[in-house]
Amino acid sequence: MTIEYKGDAFYGWQRQKLTPTVQAEIEDALRVIAREKVAVHGAGRTDAGVHAFAQVAHFDVQTKLRCDHTMLGINYFLKGKGAVITSLEPTADNFHARFSALSRSYHYFILNRRPSSVLQYEHAWHIMKPLNHELMQEAAQLLVGYHDFSAFRDSECQAQNPHRTLSVFDIIREGDVIRGYLKSRAFLHHQVRILMGTLKRVGDGTIKPKDVLDILASRERKCAGQTAPPHGLFFLGAEYPEEYDSAHYIDQF
Amino acid sequence: MTIEYKGDAFYGWQRQKLTPTVQAEIEDALRVIAREKVAVHGAGRTDAGVHAFAQVAHFDVQTKLRCDHTMLGINYFLKGKGAVITSLEPTADNFHARFSALSRSYHYFILNRRPSSVLQYEHAWHIMKPLNHELMQEAAQLLVGYHDFSAFRDSECQAQNPHRTLSVFDIIREGDVIRGYLKSRAFLHHQVRILMGTLKRVGDGTIKPKDVLDILASRERKCAGQTAPPHGLFFLGAEYPEEYDSAHYIDQF
Repeated sequence: MTIEYKGDAFYGWQRQKLTPTVQAEIEDALRVIAREKVAVHGAGRTDAGVHAFAQVAHFDVQTKLRCDHTMLGINYFLKGKGAVITSLEPTADNFHARFSALSRSYHYFILNRRPSSVLQYEHAWHIMKPLNHELMQEAAQLLVGYHDFSAFRDSECQAQNPHRTLSVFDIIREGDVIRGYLKSRAFLHHQVRILMGTLKRVGDGTIKPKDVLDILASRERKCAGQTAPPHGLFFLGAEYPEEYDSAHYIDQF
Repeated sequence: MTIEYKGDAFYGWQRQKLTPTVQAEIEDALRVIAREKVAVHGAGRTDAGVHAFAQVAHFDVQTKLRCDHTMLGINYFLKGKGAVITSLEPTADNFHARFSALSRSYHYFILNRRPSSVLQYEHAWHIMKPLNHELMQEAAQLLVGYHDFSAFRDSECQAQNPHRTLSVFDIIREGDVIRGYLKSRAFLHHQVRILMGTLKRVGDGTIKPKDVLDILASRERKCAGQTAPPHGLFFLGAEYPEEYDSAHYIDQF
């Protein structure tokens, strides 16, 4: 299934003590609909405040369910809570939303102008100081590729391996809005937000584009920039091998 | 000055009995700041529910005011009300936000998918039935140019002359979102929304693209489609002759 949600309505994706979380809300709905305990696995564990256009998740159930009825049922349960299931389809038994993903992609929005905004303030990091997006793009290109991203992960990141392949990192300006587009097989904890917080320092002239190579080489979180606020971040979606396309499984339901 | 506002926070631009309106809020703020009664004139009288990225307005004052202080002052007054002044600059004495405008432009957003949305529902007309945007674009091109738009104006429209020159009308699809872009020297009352409501009927196959020519020729409001809801509409801005650029007047302040 794919899920759209507003970051400010939840304490992130993952079930935990603080409620509501997106995962817990969907699991609770499915428990009622399927009359069994259902575990929902997501492609990306977005933090509190981070939005999603198309989070991907899967679940296994014993009960035979119709996809269309199940989607309507979950959405009835989610009504007014800031999340909506936008598709729900059958797939292979061995599909895993997290482990089968070939890539994840994100947008990060910066509103770069002096006046504040009433239409965009919930969905962009507001930076008043003019940022040079061309320098930011230059720095972003130096970070593309297979690297040890230790400097760009949260101190609480639990990944064993700090190496990741950042396959796309583009910075585009459209008027007052600077948009970062990032794509990687997987990201470290807070990686996107620390990358954007570091490029902000490139954009405002505090550091030069090539300085990001020293930060990368340092492998020290303290050398990178701040963790950019969550409300500018949108999880765009995840890609999977063609073999999992619902078209191959639709006749089973 | 340019003003950004959320349509759902106001009963439209123009001062009237129902409050709040954007014009009245700014006039009230200026009365306090300038200590005189100030009339604010806007480029477009947007309806209740219609958003603006950059409404343009002007005012004349006797009191000598600093632009930067005045902008901060009005924004202090508008805080939390759903509007913000994004620029305020000096211009020529004979400048008029409404009468000097060379063109106005709008975006209209349609969310075209079955599931609802939590991120876009306040800013797009949600249409579940699949729309063919290519047919919509074909119909839009037939409406570009100088025409009697009587069929596409509200029965309460007070304009003497129903002729307008629609200079641009483009329909673009990006994933689930169909965006209309319209540009004209001036628009009739509800013209953009009735045009979009009519193109919706082209998109869903109720009428054919060339049928819009018969609707145009009928000059009858009842032949056109519904008035599309206001929350999909964004006033993008107005253009003025170069002679009014603040650069020519900045040293007077």
